[in-house]
Amino acid sequence: MQTLLDTQTRLQDLHCAACNTPYSAFQLQRVSTCCGQPLVARYDLHEPLTRASGIDQAENSMWRYHSLLPLLDDANRVSLGEGWTPMLQLQRLGSRYGLRDLRLKDEGLNPTGSFKARGLSMAISKAKELGVTGCIIPTAGNAGVAMAAYCARAGMRAVVAMPSHTPKAFKEECYWYGAEVHLVHGLINDCAARVRELNADNSLLDVSTLKEPYRLEGKKTMGYELAEQLNWTLPDVLLYPAGGGTGLIGIWKALREMQALGWLPADAKLPRMVAVQSANCCPLVETRAGRQANCHSYVGQPTIANGLAVPRPLGEPLMLQVLDESNGLAVAITDEQMLEGMRELARLEGMFVAPEGAAVWMAARQLLETGWLRPEEQILLLNTGSGQKYLDNVEGRY
Amino acid sequence: MQTLLDTQTRLQDLHCAACNTPYSAFQLQRVSTCCGQPLVARYDLHEPLTRASGIDQAENSMWRYHSLLPLLDDANRVSLGEGWTPMLQLQRLGSRYGLRDLRLKDEGLNPTGSFKARGLSMAISKAKELGVTGCIIPTAGNAGVAMAAYCARAGMRAVVAMPSHTPKAFKEECYWYGAEVHLVHGLINDCAARVRELNADNSLLDVSTLKEPYRLEGKKTMGYELAEQLNWTLPDVLLYPAGGGTGLIGIWKALREMQALGWLPADAKLPRMVAVQSANCCPLVETRAGRQANCHSYVGQPTIANGLAVPRPLGEPLMLQVLDESNGLAVAITDEQMLEGMRELARLEGMFVAPEGAAVWMAARQLLETGWLRPEEQILLLNTGSGQKYLDNVEGRY
Ligand SMILES: Cc1ncc(COP(=O)(O)O)c(C=O)c1O
Ligand SMILES: Cc1ncc(COP(=O)(O)O)c(C=O)c1O
Repeated sequence: MQTLLDTQTRLQDLHCAACNTPYSAFQLQRVSTCCGQPLVARYDLHEPLTRASGIDQAENSMWRYHSLLPLLDDANRVSLGEGWTPMLQLQRLGSRYGLRDLRLKDEGLNPTGSFKARGLSMAISKAKELGVTGCIIPTAGNAGVAMAAYCARAGMRAVVAMPSHTPKAFKEECYWYGAEVHLVHGLINDCAARVRELNADNSLLDVSTLKEPYRLEGKKTMGYELAEQLNWTLPDVLLYPAGGGTGLIGIWKALREMQALGWLPADAKLPRMVAVQSANCCPLVETRAGRQANCHSYVGQPTIANGLAVPRPLGEPLMLQVLDESNGLAVAITDEQMLEGMRELARLEGMFVAPEGAAVWMAARQLLETGWLRPEEQILLLNTGSGQKYLDNVEGRY
Repeated sequence: MQTLLDTQTRLQDLHCAACNTPYSAFQLQRVSTCCGQPLVARYDLHEPLTRASGIDQAENSMWRYHSLLPLLDDANRVSLGEGWTPMLQLQRLGSRYGLRDLRLKDEGLNPTGSFKARGLSMAISKAKELGVTGCIIPTAGNAGVAMAAYCARAGMRAVVAMPSHTPKAFKEECYWYGAEVHLVHGLINDCAARVRELNADNSLLDVSTLKEPYRLEGKKTMGYELAEQLNWTLPDVLLYPAGGGTGLIGIWKALREMQALGWLPADAKLPRMVAVQSANCCPLVETRAGRQANCHSYVGQPTIANGLAVPRPLGEPLMLQVLDESNGLAVAITDEQMLEGMRELARLEGMFVAPEGAAVWMAARQLLETGWLRPEEQILLLNTGSGQKYLDNVEGRY
């Protein structure tokens, strides 16, 4: 019904991640009504689309991939310059460990200091396009800050619920953006319960991880970018810190889309995907090891990697699917190990990464020791955030 | 003597900013020995160089302008992905004040959170190329953090002297990078005195503002970028927070180079340049108003915009020259005004800027009130840093 305006998006519809039932992409949706599962955007990838015409080369943000993003009208774009972050060679760290090709994509250089900017830029843009006037989110920190910033830029009301133990810098920044902040005793699942109370009348759009379809679309741009930055090749192994899981799932979705589009060499092997979790909260590791059927009653503890304290992620089945399809695995890293990783990355490479990013490096070290990862492979670490806002967690531990 | 290696840099020589005496660009230099003034890099801009061949379009950092940067061999590049930062339209803020075209270039998205990354990436790269093994710097905060990061990445020793009242986040980040930090009672000029003591044997390269020629070259890339992002047009007015002055001087240098290269339309008017200072420390305002002959005995006070607490900048004559040539002016903004500007930018545009960036916006407001700036002009604000590291200065003032 809706005519496509300024962008030439290939968006077709949404479908239920569990049973594939289609849903309209042209009206406001949350989770699927059939299964209560995430809705996933689907594009027309069969009509030929070359990289040259599908990518806006002049755009130095994730919006360079606008044809494969769900926004209908560019005028609704709510952007702070998110994405198109650098991919950096880690020469000194790599040679200390005898690695041939170690790289890191630095998502700490996004607006508000984390990869969450991608998902929230997209979700708030779509919310604007669909007439939404306020949003609400349960968050471990970074997603809340990002939502508050994009809502401010869009002129929308923002309500954020975060654990009371979250480092001060996250709270402060939300206040600066004019958000309403609720501090909750517990972890992000407790915040989610508070969000349901606060939004009982459904007057706000709940942009919880995978409870609306578009944050995932923002995050998938990491996948497009890494392929473009590697000149349309892929690393052997990709390590990502997984909490709610949209980063991992989004990157995998992008790789599949690029395959369908013919943007990758026909014989390109997809990377083995490693989901990195905190030893204090590692539901995926537990499920995959067969110590529980699923995460539904997993109990997690706080960790200095606040973003990894997600005990019962809605996206667990999708994450497990990515690990299965890619011959990947899930790894748990302790807080002490994260601090060691932060020190190494700071001192050898000049990068002050979030504990989540340090966990990813320590996971690589662990997998090199077990032999699962080989020194001659091309290894890509995703650092999802800057260490800056974590000072309360890591002060003096340099 | 030296052959040019991987890059095709147009670098020719250096010259004394005061008397034009030439110096070799192929050996380590500090200030001019003739006048004790800054040395400025000069390029061959007469041999034709098109934008298409002079710019590396695939490079999403300031290094896209490598032909006009002083590095001889790409292998010496010490980069964390600095530059090529977004230029954003401020629609909501602009319409509140009836402005036709208000934009902000967000340097807070650089590695280590400020535009200082550009200058230090360049200076440390050249230091590496010239065989330096350690660097020292007096800093108000951001430059020290950036130097510490790039030295870590290059494997060089880093010594930083900063005022003891500098917010904690600046100190902490330097420690993470493994830098040696000296806290000094006073402002940056007192830190400079400490640096002279610490480096009495000259074993470290002193990368103080304008005491080596290459930080300026890194910072000038802001000028190239803003022209490219405005599709090779220029704004009517450009506002920049001026402490030591390299940002202002560097951007102006870039504009002149682009004129010489024919990269700007022949009739392009250069922007009026506004140097924004803190009311607590505004030597340029005082000199330009005729209340002192120069800044040599100016006494400044601390300000929440730490980067503007530079009472006696070596680059004063060069800054005054930029203001004269461009029909610009110098403006002083109080700390209270900066806080108001931070609130406006955060709440209306979702940007948590450094007090220095907020000062720039408040200067625009002031100049609109006096009529010097007209609502129909194209106005470009430079936000030089993220607000993140300033929490100690601004906590609870949202
Ligand atoms: C820095 C950081 N890394 C990783 C994650 C986990 O991301 P996801 O929930 O998409 O798996 C988060 C989430 O808060 C985060 O803030
Ligand atoms: C955020 C910020 N803005 C502006 C300045 C002033 O820059 P310059 O010394 O190049 O004039 C500084 C210097 O420390 C800074 O940190």
